[in-house]
Amino acid sequence: MDQTQLPGAEVYVTLTTIREVVDAMKRLVVRGAPALGCAAAYAMALELPPTDNVAAWLTQLKKNACALEAARPTAVNLGVGVRLQLELGHGLAASGQGSPATWTKQLVQIAQAFHFADQESCLALSEHAQGLLHNGVSVLTHCNAGALATGGIGTALGPLHLAHSRGVKLHVYADETRPLRQGTRLTAWELARHGIAVSVLPDSAAATLLAQGKVDLVFVGSDRIAANGDVANKLGTYPLAVLAQKHGIPFYVLAPGTTIDPACPNGSCIPIEQRDAAELYDSASQPEGVDVFNPAFDITPAELVSAIITEQGLFQPHGPHQGLWLDYVNSFKA
Amino acid sequence: MDQTQLPGAEVYVTLTTIREVVDAMKRLVVRGAPALGCAAAYAMALELPPTDNVAAWLTQLKKNACALEAARPTAVNLGVGVRLQLELGHGLAASGQGSPATWTKQLVQIAQAFHFADQESCLALSEHAQGLLHNGVSVLTHCNAGALATGGIGTALGPLHLAHSRGVKLHVYADETRPLRQGTRLTAWELARHGIAVSVLPDSAAATLLAQGKVDLVFVGSDRIAANGDVANKLGTYPLAVLAQKHGIPFYVLAPGTTIDPACPNGSCIPIEQRDAAELYDSASQPEGVDVFNPAFDITPAELVSAIITEQGLFQPHGPHQGLWLDYVNSFKA
Repeated sequence: MDQTQLPGAEVYVTLTTIREVVDAMKRLVVRGAPALGCAAAYAMALELPPTDNVAAWLTQLKKNACALEAARPTAVNLGVGVRLQLELGHGLAASGQGSPATWTKQLVQIAQAFHFADQESCLALSEHAQGLLHNGVSVLTHCNAGALATGGIGTALGPLHLAHSRGVKLHVYADETRPLRQGTRLTAWELARHGIAVSVLPDSAAATLLAQGKVDLVFVGSDRIAANGDVANKLGTYPLAVLAQKHGIPFYVLAPGTTIDPACPNGSCIPIEQRDAAELYDSASQPEGVDVFNPAFDITPAELVSAIITEQGLFQPHGPHQGLWLDYVNSFKA
Repeated sequence: MDQTQLPGAEVYVTLTTIREVVDAMKRLVVRGAPALGCAAAYAMALELPPTDNVAAWLTQLKKNACALEAARPTAVNLGVGVRLQLELGHGLAASGQGSPATWTKQLVQIAQAFHFADQESCLALSEHAQGLLHNGVSVLTHCNAGALATGGIGTALGPLHLAHSRGVKLHVYADETRPLRQGTRLTAWELARHGIAVSVLPDSAAATLLAQGKVDLVFVGSDRIAANGDVANKLGTYPLAVLAQKHGIPFYVLAPGTTIDPACPNGSCIPIEQRDAAELYDSASQPEGVDVFNPAFDITPAELVSAIITEQGLFQPHGPHQGLWLDYVNSFKA
């Protein structure tokens, strides 16, 4: 689904070249860290030559990997999907068994398995979060970490979909999420379409809701989680975490394990994508001599996160249970 | 100047009826608490019958007052400009001297004096703030509290214009200020046009700048200040104040004395205007079943304000110097 056209139109696009996939990722036709991972895993099987020339097949596979990894720098899942396929491709070629044509088919099967695993992760982490969602609960979220952003029912929105399907009454407050308005365009559309009560608000109004005691919990997704539990997520997540702490409201990050980057010791190592000035100005109206600061993501330090919820359960990267988190992070190094 | 058309076009409008003025205020053609006060003071002299019928003259004056006061509820200056003229009108009528035609002329003269006083206030408070602005200082601001929002050089932006005119090198970070983008449209235009270096950012990016140590001071205006020093200002001011405190950055509110409402004991008494859902959605794309929370202003508690700077100097409504502030507030009760 072309997410740039939501909520006005539901248009499905078929992408058949790497260039098309990269362009779709850059323009946020497809977006959301887990969805980028799935899309990248599938895309790795594109344009691979069907001949028996092993060298040409491997060369194209590497080209695909480079182009896809460069599409967007922050979401770690994208790289996970790419490198999984790259390693598999090299393994198949080294095995001497089968041919490039059968290997390409195997890459597609692995992409499907990767996609299926993301679906399962969404369900499992959503199940782990159910204990937080009582009848009448009010949840604030930022950006879109829903079905549109993943291969399944979503990360931050997954538990809400699951609870709603079981009859739990929820109210969701969705930040607009400037500059690309994923909250008003995507989250509101996704939740309203499933019958979940949703109010949208300018990002700056979240502070007023928190001050008025109208929010019970904050749920956000993540694009990359450092080994110490620092969280990169859509710009606006960090101020929300500061405000949640100020008002004593629990702040949860929901993400599959693929979002964890054990090679990244803390948030300062996470590359932050700078986006175009045109997202704040249509080029016609940008006054001369005005500079634009438009990072796509920000870093929320681990100490502001009540818990990180993955398919393996709730983890507290800060405080007395830090050891359990570090063991979990280390399990991804294998 | 029609501020809804900035920065694309500089269009001046002439308003000759109360209905036109009220419409211009509601649509934010004219906006900013001090500018609303000036516009209202001038508008009070519109549509007054030139005949010698005193009762008809007073009836129209009251009609004008009611319509103007209802245009926008939060800015206290609007009501100050209106009531000043209403009292003056009643005084003139009671005096028995002159005629409705001469009284109308006197109202215009008072409006000019009120406008001139606002210019003087802007200059005086800007002078009081100069000690904060050293060479190379970096100031973050929200919304537009500049020349466009006042009868003079501005409140939050006034000191920056003044310092720049004296050769002080400044860098200004201007929040976009959703939903109506007064920062990108108005503040950036106003500063760039005067040669002041300005960067714009999504409101949510201010937290990143503060965390990176790129901001020395925060300067904002106000639409109404309660007797205890709680500040109503454009939505997004309160989260900025929380973030400034978290990062140890001084947070200043700059406003003329007319912005103080001694009748309002604290922020909870300040009426907050709710604006239209269409500001977040063009009506075409609002998904069905989605609610919109769109307050125009928020309340910053006095304890988050380093100082309030008026034409009378710097006041600290919270802490050991509270008495000086309360004396100052009481001076407006006379």
